Amino acid sequence: MTFTKRTHNCGELRTSDIGKRVTLNGWVASRRDMGAMMFVDIRDRYGITQVVFDASEKTTQNADVFATGRKLRSEFVISASGVVRKREKGNSNLATGQIEILVSHCEILNEAETPPFEISEDTTASEEQCLKYRYLDLRRHSLQEKFIIRNKFYQITHQYFHEHNFLEIETPVLMKSTPEGARDFLVPSRIHKGKFYALPQSPQIYKQLLMVGGFDRYVQIVKCFRDEDLRADRQPEFSQIDVEMSFIDQDEILRLTEGYVKRLWKEILNIEVETPFRRIQFTEAMQRYGSDKPDTRFAMELCELTEEVKECEFNVFKVVAHNNGTIAALNAKGCARYSRKDTDALTELAKRYGAKGLSIVKYVDGKFESPIAKYLSTYMQSAILQKTGAENGDLLLIAADDWERCLTILGQLRLEIARREKILDVVKEKFDFLFVVDFPLLEFSPEENRFAARHHPFTSPKAEDIPLFEKNPAAMRANAYDLVINGMEIGGGSLRIYRRDIQEKMFKALGFTKEEAEQKFGFLLGAFRYGAPPHGGIAFGLDRFVMTLAGTENIRDVIAFPKTTSMYSLMDDSPSTVSEAQLQTLGIKLTTPDQQE
Amino acid sequence: MTFTKRTHNCGELRTSDIGKRVTLNGWVASRRDMGAMMFVDIRDRYGITQVVFDASEKTTQNADVFATGRKLRSEFVISASGVVRKREKGNSNLATGQIEILVSHCEILNEAETPPFEISEDTTASEEQCLKYRYLDLRRHSLQEKFIIRNKFYQITHQYFHEHNFLEIETPVLMKSTPEGARDFLVPSRIHKGKFYALPQSPQIYKQLLMVGGFDRYVQIVKCFRDEDLRADRQPEFSQIDVEMSFIDQDEILRLTEGYVKRLWKEILNIEVETPFRRIQFTEAMQRYGSDKPDTRFAMELCELTEEVKECEFNVFKVVAHNNGTIAALNAKGCARYSRKDTDALTELAKRYGAKGLSIVKYVDGKFESPIAKYLSTYMQSAILQKTGAENGDLLLIAADDWERCLTILGQLRLEIARREKILDVVKEKFDFLFVVDFPLLEFSPEENRFAARHHPFTSPKAEDIPLFEKNPAAMRANAYDLVINGMEIGGGSLRIYRRDIQEKMFKALGFTKEEAEQKFGFLLGAFRYGAPPHGGIAFGLDRFVMTLAGTENIRDVIAFPKTTSMYSLMDDSPSTVSEAQLQTLGIKLTTPDQQE
Repeated sequence: MTFTKRTHNCGELRTSDIGKRVTLNGWVASRRDMGAMMFVDIRDRYGITQVVFDASEKTTQNADVFATGRKLRSEFVISASGVVRKREKGNSNLATGQIEILVSHCEILNEAETPPFEISEDTTASEEQCLKYRYLDLRRHSLQEKFIIRNKFYQITHQYFHEHNFLEIETPVLMKSTPEGARDFLVPSRIHKGKFYALPQSPQIYKQLLMVGGFDRYVQIVKCFRDEDLRADRQPEFSQIDVEMSFIDQDEILRLTEGYVKRLWKEILNIEVETPFRRIQFTEAMQRYGSDKPDTRFAMELCELTEEVKECEFNVFKVVAHNNGTIAALNAKGCARYSRKDTDALTELAKRYGAKGLSIVKYVDGKFESPIAKYLSTYMQSAILQKTGAENGDLLLIAADDWERCLTILGQLRLEIARREKILDVVKEKFDFLFVVDFPLLEFSPEENRFAARHHPFTSPKAEDIPLFEKNPAAMRANAYDLVINGMEIGGGSLRIYRRDIQEKMFKALGFTKEEAEQKFGFLLGAFRYGAPPHGGIAFGLDRFVMTLAGTENIRDVIAFPKTTSMYSLMDDSPSTVSEAQLQTLGIKLTTPDQQE
Repeated sequence: MTFTKRTHNCGELRTSDIGKRVTLNGWVASRRDMGAMMFVDIRDRYGITQVVFDASEKTTQNADVFATGRKLRSEFVISASGVVRKREKGNSNLATGQIEILVSHCEILNEAETPPFEISEDTTASEEQCLKYRYLDLRRHSLQEKFIIRNKFYQITHQYFHEHNFLEIETPVLMKSTPEGARDFLVPSRIHKGKFYALPQSPQIYKQLLMVGGFDRYVQIVKCFRDEDLRADRQPEFSQIDVEMSFIDQDEILRLTEGYVKRLWKEILNIEVETPFRRIQFTEAMQRYGSDKPDTRFAMELCELTEEVKECEFNVFKVVAHNNGTIAALNAKGCARYSRKDTDALTELAKRYGAKGLSIVKYVDGKFESPIAKYLSTYMQSAILQKTGAENGDLLLIAADDWERCLTILGQLRLEIARREKILDVVKEKFDFLFVVDFPLLEFSPEENRFAARHHPFTSPKAEDIPLFEKNPAAMRANAYDLVINGMEIGGGSLRIYRRDIQEKMFKALGFTKEEAEQKFGFLLGAFRYGAPPHGGIAFGLDRFVMTLAGTENIRDVIAFPKTTSMYSLMDDSPSTVSEAQLQTLGIKLTTPDQQE
């Protein structure tokens, strides 16, 4: 189990090394047998180098060396030594493409069975197979590159926050189950039977306590956990860059963020990002783009038509207008050509986001083609044309609903049209950075018939809105902000409530009784008694950040050992059954024991 | 909720700032009211600065400012502005001690109730109170300093491994329950009812798979979890610096470690550490110091007496010698003065480590004073004197047991004598770095009547010992090594088995059937089929490392929100009960539901 150790890695030899005796360690990426000559590509994390076995070499050992070369197969691990020489036909696609090594000594360090799929960029393996044999999939250069970007991301993050006087502090993973937000993962306690720890959805409370504790500036790259039904871009565990600062205002946090993003883009992509980023209010983002994380790389803005059509005879519009709802339109330029199938798909999409229906108007040959055309007077039609800027051949999509839903539906249609019309392909190379600010503090939950915190219960309202706690909570704005890149929410944060009286008003607005608030957040409220400083922070989604930098839309490309959308690990078959004895020790049992296989 | 933001922190103003108008934000550390003058110390993470309220100032606002000053109490959060001036009587203990600020504007940002204990270095609060009000305890300067050291530790770690070409990669927290070692914390799966994730005791398997995946060099600062009954220096969750490398040998890993330690000591303590560190074989460490993590800052070595006394008539010695056991002694210099109570305590300690008894010999006035003296011939006595170097007034502690237990008992007695004789106080300022190498591969478990892996089941045996798998597994040595500082195990690692045939021999030696091995580690064995490189690594206990650097013996001093020895968080009362509905969602129930409060 001893072997000849490498003198170089597989990515660093150049023509300046010609004549040197070197050793490489790595994997056989390919082997071409030309009879008296064999060409083998050796691969490691750093690159690929060609080595040559030549039967015509007349050294004493060469017959053995050549015989060893004959045995090599794909993915064998080898140590190959020899002299670097110029390659006859260079390969300019490869950094090491101008040289090769004439092998005079070769050891097989480990053999390999034929892999279940070819380890190459154009592998035809299914995603399932790739996840099951993740350790093989990870050998692919394009995947390794993403982890090299992720590594750079960590280093820049460590440096940047260190330079800005932040302290890296770890918060507990085994913490208290908090009731707000998504479902907690629970961990049964063996010593305190019947009690449970929860895994953090975020270290929110702890980072606020660190501010109360006087640490001034805190940063942590931290795993967070949410037991949600997974969508394509979520994982049950994800990483977050968690930041909190004392004695600051919103602008200071946004400036810190801009500097961070600027540094990341410069050092990883060599792109100069212009700062400051555009600040766009939540209300404006909704009105213009139908999203609180708008992709503003392209325009295609929404326009409100409530005033223009509220008097029309179309009942849907009438009712919505009467109930203070919103009627708005998206002009899909040139899309009047869409077939019935296309427009049905758009209606379906609208329904997925809560629409009861979608009014579709084709503007062709100076006329409205639409079931609703007959309800719209000539005056209304020309008002609509003017407002939407519709021209011959355009398609108008009109939604009518409460304000937020109406705009959200059109926002989704806007993205769909952009995809269909290949607008996203055109802007793909662009990066679009912005802050969405002035979010509403609360949102009304009709199911629970109460207000919920839009961000979280510790988000501070705008100072000037505090009197609205009693009069009009729905109208309150928060000191909350999101970082949005290319239409993805990459980070979000807020100034926090640091005064106990305001925190109590907030809990009251959320419908917590004093006892509930005490039980759930008592220790935080307690801490606020003893001098909490003004503070605020932000948290960035690390996985999404890296996806953006690495140019991938698949979160599994940037996580070493990801789970499937059903939270399953195909590689190690977890979660898995455990022994009855283990459960007993923990004081729990399964409700339906037959599920235990 | 707006306030005047600081221009400086509370630790940075100097005489060179005299005359500047500045603003500080921070906590009222103390307030001395002299009637027409008030002196207030403002504190933040960076230091303390004195500000002065002077009633005699004749500005228009000053009456208000002075009135505000009157309201200040300990731990109020304030913003104070004014001009820096020279302090009449400087305080040379304080970096800011030569200046003060004459306050011309003061805002109370938050009030504070009287804290439950005084926030000062000489607080009389119990540890329980400190943990309950951790956010207040954390304001103490001596505690904050430890987190500043910990932060430096992180930064140096990030830099060092980055410079050495390591990639920082995150491994899963929700993983498969593995059966070896300590108890896993389990996490019930909601989607896959009846199945469980486990929290990692270490990312061992994943880091090995990263090597199979070709990442070459991996580092991660990672939380690990062990559901053990806690001792004073353990926490259920702890942090580890986890390292793995491919195509290396043991020496390369030890050299990397030396460089890392050297850098830490230089940058944090400004101490030049000599490298290479001493390498001491496990067997030698046991024989000389009775420990696999010897504190070699002082000598007091053990000496074996088996040969010298095996023929004596003392039955205990005879039986042990006959069964190939070991008889050895510790010479406690000058301790013949110990009382019966003292020696009883030593016997008790020996018993705690498994001794059936302890033979105690006082060497006084040229004579052995001991119940066993009568069994020892003059010849034996002089042999013992020669071997142990005992002189008049010394105390000999003699243990007889199997080799490892005999030496372990004496090793513990050695530490106890060092404590009693204040030898540890003398060497306290010294740092003693060493590697213990050549550990046994296996250890026999009499309870289970089988061998267990001493390190873990993937530890590679010495190449020359592989034939012993069949003949004498107990004699096999591992390519395993520990970093020991001042008698604390700070890190441990090994070269790994990378060939499938040897891994199978290892599992066989551990008594796993093929099916068991397949079920437990199938995916790792599978990975070894496809070309695993030679690899190895090490993991360092971050909390202990920082304890050593920060000079504390209490692990809770270096963890922001620690748990008690019964795994309880006094601050947030976790673990806690959860709702019946939450358990139902997870498909579990409590075995004794009345425990649910």
